[in-house]
Amino acid sequence: MSQSAKRIVLASRPVGEPTPANFRLEDYAVPTPGEGELLLRTIWLSLDPYMRGRMDDGPSYSAPVPIGGVMEGGTVCEVVASNNPGFAKGDIVLAHTGWQQSALSNGKGLRKIDPAIAPISTAVGILGMPGMTAYTGLLAIGNPQPGETVVVAAASGAVGSAVGQIAKIKGARAVGIAGGKEKCDYVKSELGFDECIDHRDPDLRARVKEACPKGIDVYFENVGGKVFDAVLPRFNDFARIPVCGLIADYNTIFGKDTPTPPWANTIMRQILVKRLNFRGFIVRDFAAMFPDFIRDMSQWLREGKIKHREFVTEGLDSAPQAFMGLLKGKNFGKQLVRVGPDKA
Amino acid sequence: MSQSAKRIVLASRPVGEPTPANFRLEDYAVPTPGEGELLLRTIWLSLDPYMRGRMDDGPSYSAPVPIGGVMEGGTVCEVVASNNPGFAKGDIVLAHTGWQQSALSNGKGLRKIDPAIAPISTAVGILGMPGMTAYTGLLAIGNPQPGETVVVAAASGAVGSAVGQIAKIKGARAVGIAGGKEKCDYVKSELGFDECIDHRDPDLRARVKEACPKGIDVYFENVGGKVFDAVLPRFNDFARIPVCGLIADYNTIFGKDTPTPPWANTIMRQILVKRLNFRGFIVRDFAAMFPDFIRDMSQWLREGKIKHREFVTEGLDSAPQAFMGLLKGKNFGKQLVRVGPDKA
Repeated sequence: MSQSAKRIVLASRPVGEPTPANFRLEDYAVPTPGEGELLLRTIWLSLDPYMRGRMDDGPSYSAPVPIGGVMEGGTVCEVVASNNPGFAKGDIVLAHTGWQQSALSNGKGLRKIDPAIAPISTAVGILGMPGMTAYTGLLAIGNPQPGETVVVAAASGAVGSAVGQIAKIKGARAVGIAGGKEKCDYVKSELGFDECIDHRDPDLRARVKEACPKGIDVYFENVGGKVFDAVLPRFNDFARIPVCGLIADYNTIFGKDTPTPPWANTIMRQILVKRLNFRGFIVRDFAAMFPDFIRDMSQWLREGKIKHREFVTEGLDSAPQAFMGLLKGKNFGKQLVRVGPDKA
Repeated sequence: MSQSAKRIVLASRPVGEPTPANFRLEDYAVPTPGEGELLLRTIWLSLDPYMRGRMDDGPSYSAPVPIGGVMEGGTVCEVVASNNPGFAKGDIVLAHTGWQQSALSNGKGLRKIDPAIAPISTAVGILGMPGMTAYTGLLAIGNPQPGETVVVAAASGAVGSAVGQIAKIKGARAVGIAGGKEKCDYVKSELGFDECIDHRDPDLRARVKEACPKGIDVYFENVGGKVFDAVLPRFNDFARIPVCGLIADYNTIFGKDTPTPPWANTIMRQILVKRLNFRGFIVRDFAAMFPDFIRDMSQWLREGKIKHREFVTEGLDSAPQAFMGLLKGKNFGKQLVRVGPDKA
């Protein structure tokens, strides 16, 4: 009585672009749920750029799919049999059962979906991971203010379309970047972005400049590559750049083909994978902290907790040499020039 | 009766490393304070790496020193004559009168220094801009936690020495990088850093790895160049990198000599000059925001404020092609694979 179902496993790891040979379609026997388990039938499988990363075995924030393993992925499933009191036959759930028609679950990590709220496929779209990615990255990191300019690429896609629309809700100006006239028209006229740039334009930098006359305050990074190159020069002071994806680089074989300069790739990839926070600053940006600073540092000095060293050169005439030495690290401690005596 | 004083002006802009020809020593008549003005006699002139930037006329966070203008700089001065009720002859003040022996001031921006608290030179050192730079950058951006590893270069210098010691006060592990055995010994035995690495070591990456067995949680960036290259691979997840200086690159002539890859320079320089905030993230880092997300997004969907588009391919078999298409931007909206019907 065991039925057969289909699944797709990772046959081999791609080198650069995935090819069909990297995937294998398999038949398997639909399993029978044991105690506490339930059987899920996949309705929707979400495909998302992050999966490219799971096909590689380099270090990342998640373990790779093993060779022969079912390709990973978020799914919307129907419970077709249940030995779990938390779920009934017919329930629709959000799961992560991957590229297969049927799977067992012990109920952990499942979330029930109410079809009355919205079409159930939205649970892996606008009301699911992509929507959440847009919402959290834009609001918690990008923090767009009314009148600011928010730029996002892949603007017709799951994440990008939400980013721009939330930016508009927050009163910001939304500029999308997308591939081709059709997508760009959709982004502007349907989604209501203020502008949308075709990334196939031969002079992308010029288009970005035109579309962002006041510069860029938030760049939601989900593509990398040439788009990053084009927006970088337009960032305003204090711009925020949530980095959530680098799809343009996912197929890049570093050292072999590098469509963008390899160091840009390397740095951006580290920022993404390790969720680094790079933030430039000038001390005067923190002028309000001055009283705290003086209080704490004075105390630490008094208590001998902070030591410091001065490297003094004598006379104003010594300043140029001292300064040139400073740039070469010839000073040893805080470089000072004694221009005059303490008391004349 | 006019006395003569000396000042150093910018004679020409350096190309690469500054040379003596870029500076000119001039005599000038000591000015006489007018109404509300006071005359300052320079006691201490601070020399700091940022001055290299003022010698260039490229875009930055401050205006360049004009050709023929007095070189900029923080100073500790004595008030030698005052027509300003806020200051008396003999007062010691923190000023920004630059590379000259004598200057007028209207009192704006001056801060009186109490010589009883600490030697007055500390007002341009540990109790001044360099100390404040260390304090704010480390605490407001780096936010070191007990047990974490904080790395700072130029560790015997004005900023770096304070960074490491404040890190220790906060319970973190401090690893310095400095040039030569003498400086390194000082950083470890005098300042109490846990480790100090000589940046002249031919295998800097290996030394960083040894000194930071648990990786790097905070890297206070004040040098750039080869040190940045060496620490980048050791950043832990969620590492914070306050970027306050790139002294290793200040003399670099981009396109001519590039001791580090030019793109690394470019990105880091943008982060610094524009105080950008680059922060990688994975949506699950913000799991706590999920209820807010569902509430807001559901409402926005209901109100028609958010639109979305799905791009559906039919059947599990279509998944590989759909996925490969996704990586090339062939989808138009949220990519979905319909694996089965809504109701079986």
